[in-house]
Amino acid sequence: MASQAVTPQSVDFSKWYNEIVYKADLADHSPVRGCIIIKPYGYELWEGIRDALDKRFKETGHRNAYFPLFIPESYLKREAEHVEGFSPELAVVTIAGGKELEEPLVVRPTSETIIGEAFSEWIQSYRDLPLLINQWSNVVRWELRTRPFLRTTEFLWQEGHTAHATDTEAEAETLQMLDIYADFAITEAAIPVVKGRKSNIERFAGAVRTYTIEAMMGDKKALQSGTSHNLGQNFAKAFDIQYLDESNERQYCWTTSWGLSTRMVGAVVMAHGDDTGLRLPPKLAPIQLVIVPIFRDDDEKITVMAAVDRLKAELKAAGIRLHVDLREGQRPGFKFNDWEMRGVPVRMEIGPKDVSNNTVVLARRDVLGKAGKQFVSQDGIVAAVSDLLESVQQSMFDQATRFRDENIHDVNSYDELRQVVEAGGWARAWWSASDDDERRVKDETGATIRCFPLEQPGGKGICVFTGQEAQEVALFARAY
Amino acid sequence: MASQAVTPQSVDFSKWYNEIVYKADLADHSPVRGCIIIKPYGYELWEGIRDALDKRFKETGHRNAYFPLFIPESYLKREAEHVEGFSPELAVVTIAGGKELEEPLVVRPTSETIIGEAFSEWIQSYRDLPLLINQWSNVVRWELRTRPFLRTTEFLWQEGHTAHATDTEAEAETLQMLDIYADFAITEAAIPVVKGRKSNIERFAGAVRTYTIEAMMGDKKALQSGTSHNLGQNFAKAFDIQYLDESNERQYCWTTSWGLSTRMVGAVVMAHGDDTGLRLPPKLAPIQLVIVPIFRDDDEKITVMAAVDRLKAELKAAGIRLHVDLREGQRPGFKFNDWEMRGVPVRMEIGPKDVSNNTVVLARRDVLGKAGKQFVSQDGIVAAVSDLLESVQQSMFDQATRFRDENIHDVNSYDELRQVVEAGGWARAWWSASDDDERRVKDETGATIRCFPLEQPGGKGICVFTGQEAQEVALFARAY
Repeated sequence: MASQAVTPQSVDFSKWYNEIVYKADLADHSPVRGCIIIKPYGYELWEGIRDALDKRFKETGHRNAYFPLFIPESYLKREAEHVEGFSPELAVVTIAGGKELEEPLVVRPTSETIIGEAFSEWIQSYRDLPLLINQWSNVVRWELRTRPFLRTTEFLWQEGHTAHATDTEAEAETLQMLDIYADFAITEAAIPVVKGRKSNIERFAGAVRTYTIEAMMGDKKALQSGTSHNLGQNFAKAFDIQYLDESNERQYCWTTSWGLSTRMVGAVVMAHGDDTGLRLPPKLAPIQLVIVPIFRDDDEKITVMAAVDRLKAELKAAGIRLHVDLREGQRPGFKFNDWEMRGVPVRMEIGPKDVSNNTVVLARRDVLGKAGKQFVSQDGIVAAVSDLLESVQQSMFDQATRFRDENIHDVNSYDELRQVVEAGGWARAWWSASDDDERRVKDETGATIRCFPLEQPGGKGICVFTGQEAQEVALFARAY
Repeated sequence: MASQAVTPQSVDFSKWYNEIVYKADLADHSPVRGCIIIKPYGYELWEGIRDALDKRFKETGHRNAYFPLFIPESYLKREAEHVEGFSPELAVVTIAGGKELEEPLVVRPTSETIIGEAFSEWIQSYRDLPLLINQWSNVVRWELRTRPFLRTTEFLWQEGHTAHATDTEAEAETLQMLDIYADFAITEAAIPVVKGRKSNIERFAGAVRTYTIEAMMGDKKALQSGTSHNLGQNFAKAFDIQYLDESNERQYCWTTSWGLSTRMVGAVVMAHGDDTGLRLPPKLAPIQLVIVPIFRDDDEKITVMAAVDRLKAELKAAGIRLHVDLREGQRPGFKFNDWEMRGVPVRMEIGPKDVSNNTVVLARRDVLGKAGKQFVSQDGIVAAVSDLLESVQQSMFDQATRFRDENIHDVNSYDELRQVVEAGGWARAWWSASDDDERRVKDETGATIRCFPLEQPGGKGICVFTGQEAQEVALFARAY
């Protein structure tokens, strides 16, 4: 239908994204610069992400807490790199309760500082370690250029903050949380992310090492989708987070932090969407199954709705998230298109003939048209729908993995790297050049080091930029 | 134990509250004026409240969404009563991204205005109604006097916002949400709240009618624990929320809003706590059962822990939230006291003798000492613990109900009212006096009209203040 048409991805991917986010009712514009309204359909997608992560955090011993939105300005300044990284982006409260504040309050851009201060109180002895805390909250970063979900002035996220007795334990935690992010992305979001370490110039302000999961979007650009930071003793020293060890000596803790945000909603949209609209992975889809009853008159309606009500009850009892489209005045074809645009993984069509045949039509979103449709018996509908949802989930993951692998290219020279990046792919290159060289590549190609993948080819190679020996390959790509 | 001792309620209830909130690790002080840190134990209590409410909201057709934290200052001013009510309490961002903002941004004290603006876009026709939205978020009100959970500068809450075609539907929604709050408070929090209507001077800034659930705390003071507002067409007119009706004529919507906050954590503490500490209702308790293994040596430890692990697995599989206290270097007596102070509803003690007898000791928090202890067989432990949890929940509710009913007194004169209030009770009085009279009662007695209860005696009476005829009784009490 004309009203659902979006700009094709091939014409302008960026425009496609901006259109579909609003058309599919994931978000709406807001009167506040750089902020969106997350509409119910988008928020339900975020709830799915949140619940899947929260379960994993709790299973690994983390507990949720909540720290103040406001941070005294002086706190930010205690860790030198941290304040340098964040100060250009701060929103500052200067007036409260009708009076000018003596010390301005910063709206948290992240909470290492205020949580660090609390940790210094909570931790006394080695018995208090490890301390494993997570917070679900909103944060504010005054970004110059914003895009719905991908980069907004205010966004929702979780930020984990932990303290440990040793560097080894902190590093293990940092990598454990990276694994949890990757497992979530792969298992729930059907996005085959690459795990890796950030380069010096891309790491978090105040971290010793930053790890990332990088996802390939439909236009082959990279999206940093979650990060996990080993903060070493930087914040422990800035905030005096110390513990008495078993020999009764004072030691600084080793801390970590890790975050994943509503940006993941954008990742799901851009990794899976097509010209028709969204394609939501069944495990995260707010609506996994939409039922479209088809009838021409009241008699048919009674017949069809009796079957629909029965099937709905069965499917709901099995925990399948479903919606019955009862909109009046809209033809089935319109509804089919509408739900395809909204990315619902499976559609059930049921009319009077289906009822008399004891069948329904199931149509899968990942295979449009007749090829994706099948008649199934109403008996055993739960198994049929469940199997189909699993199949859609798997095939979306497989498709995204193929797409990713087809578009990562090993390159042996800077020229090759440029060509690959120019053509929109990711270049994998041996790298041992300097931070300045990395900046030069960025200036010349628009690509950054997305990460040094944890999975390395092994051995040594020749740095594509300097011709010197290199220990690692890096992934270069243009990114959001 | 001395380290757990708190000021007795009878000595100073207020001090008792302030001490227990921190001692039980519900919250910690923060460096930001009037803000607390919600620690994991307190946050888990809030998660229980949130989940129980969220389920009820979704079952009644509401969907969650998320609106910006910041509200343009001009929005607040569009509804005259609203801005008057909230402007003294606002926190204002004037600087962002290193620059002075052209229009200051208010940190939301509540979101009627920014959501009203969105509703005016989203609602076109009667087909878009009712629109039923809820938001879980933080809000900021710069309060002069703050107390942990009860009144903090920043707090967490949910705010529901709905739009309807008729006044009747809006009123029905307002009352439905009041019922949901009351059902939650009674069923989950074991607090026998009174449902009622606020007086003119106590109603929400911008509302036509505000309903409330009022709870009696352990010191007999009242705590407003949740409110539901019929906003009439006030915000619809201020934000131009209109719809085309079935005759194609433009009409203003009728809107509602309703909120319940982390204040409920304080309500649970103050309604149920005793001199020993917290008493948490089993349905909301983060830890429903604490298991304290008792052994003197490694042999006994092996025997006891084998039984503990088996029982733990059984109980966890049944969905019981439990914790095994394995702290070394602490004696059982210390642990018993510690968990009593933290309000865990049921404690299991298990030592070598219990293992050989195939029994455990179960101790209920609501009946301290020997009277609350029983030996039960390890066979059927799930049923025994579940039954005991239900029994604790019920007895806590019954006890709170008795306490409430014993302390509400019908009064027939202003003198009687003063005496009842002076003695710390709630006075129920026929009332038809003016707003100014109500203010005078407050000045003279410290009591306010908590509500006109929905449950009325019927008939007419004589106003205790004016001696004129009155249609309703009001509840007067001192309040938090």
